[in-house]
Amino acid sequence: MKYPNGKDYKPTTESKKPAKKPSSKALLSAGNRGMSFESDINAANDYYREKGICLITKRPTPINVVKVDYSKGAIITNAYFEKQSTTDYNGVFKGRYIDFEAKSTKQKVSFPLANIPSQQIEHLTKVIEHQGIAFFLIRFETVGRVFLLDAQYVIDFHSKYKRKSIPLNLIKEVGVEIEYGLNPRLNYIKAVKEKYFKK
Amino acid sequence: MKYPNGKDYKPTTESKKPAKKPSSKALLSAGNRGMSFESDINAANDYYREKGICLITKRPTPINVVKVDYSKGAIITNAYFEKQSTTDYNGVFKGRYIDFEAKSTKQKVSFPLANIPSQQIEHLTKVIEHQGIAFFLIRFETVGRVFLLDAQYVIDFHSKYKRKSIPLNLIKEVGVEIEYGLNPRLNYIKAVKEKYFKK
Repeated sequence: MKYPNGKDYKPTTESKKPAKKPSSKALLSAGNRGMSFESDINAANDYYREKGICLITKRPTPINVVKVDYSKGAIITNAYFEKQSTTDYNGVFKGRYIDFEAKSTKQKVSFPLANIPSQQIEHLTKVIEHQGIAFFLIRFETVGRVFLLDAQYVIDFHSKYKRKSIPLNLIKEVGVEIEYGLNPRLNYIKAVKEKYFKK
Repeated sequence: MKYPNGKDYKPTTESKKPAKKPSSKALLSAGNRGMSFESDINAANDYYREKGICLITKRPTPINVVKVDYSKGAIITNAYFEKQSTTDYNGVFKGRYIDFEAKSTKQKVSFPLANIPSQQIEHLTKVIEHQGIAFFLIRFETVGRVFLLDAQYVIDFHSKYKRKSIPLNLIKEVGVEIEYGLNPRLNYIKAVKEKYFKK
């Protein structure tokens, strides 16, 4: 497949591993992009906690500890990362249970579902069964736009329709766009209110 | 202070560090006691998830990763445990947010508050502010009895009354005792229903 300009089409799929030897500039920039989305969410959560708006925390990354050296305090000398079987964030807003996952993608016209583990799909399915509020915060890196998308769409596209991605156009239609502001930069709870707390 | 039998009174305070060289038998037994309470709660959560009763998960222990060796996959070679700034468990039951901490004590007539970090008190205070359900599961090891105690009592005894412990007699009066059963062994959600979902 070729674009009108004659260049080959290269799908910009997300890879799980970083490229083997990225230039330090590319690495920094990619790192910043990912980090900035996560740190924007964490900053919003700090802001919400301080202002008494809601209480949402990031779950620690699960780590399997193999060996601990107690000779100098308790230094972990052998351990490995485990897959998060739930989502990254959960908490409480107006008594309701909130559970969400944040994903950033380099794709331009769709949100790829390949990197969403099936345990996460199962977890979010159960959150909805128990009347919790479950969604994804999806950032399209190239255009810098962020959307809240109810988890049911992701569950359906993943498990019912067996699709590999969700079109951005659909996300625009059924999701809620989160505008970047000043403080907090990513005021996602506004979208939560609009989506789930409107009468 | 002496007991009627002439023996010295030794307060059996919980120590943060394990004794330097416990006998292997004592270590095993102490480990089992602690583990069994935690694993009873985890088993109950597994049961609740499978039966669709509620969705409550244990937060991973936060670990600060200092060094990762990527030469053989991603082995963490230097890291240390961080203090949990929230609680160990949270989740959703009938749409409501649930948040609790499990504590086991060797004390016989009171629940000591010394090992409850102030961040946990702050966290639980905020959970209540946001209309979440917050409690402690307290196990008295020597008698093998477990109680659900609303977190507000712990917050008040800790921060308002500046007490070092909560008397078991009060816990019996205002808490809900959780009887050990068969499956799940520790059916704590029954106490949650009784305490927070009664009309």
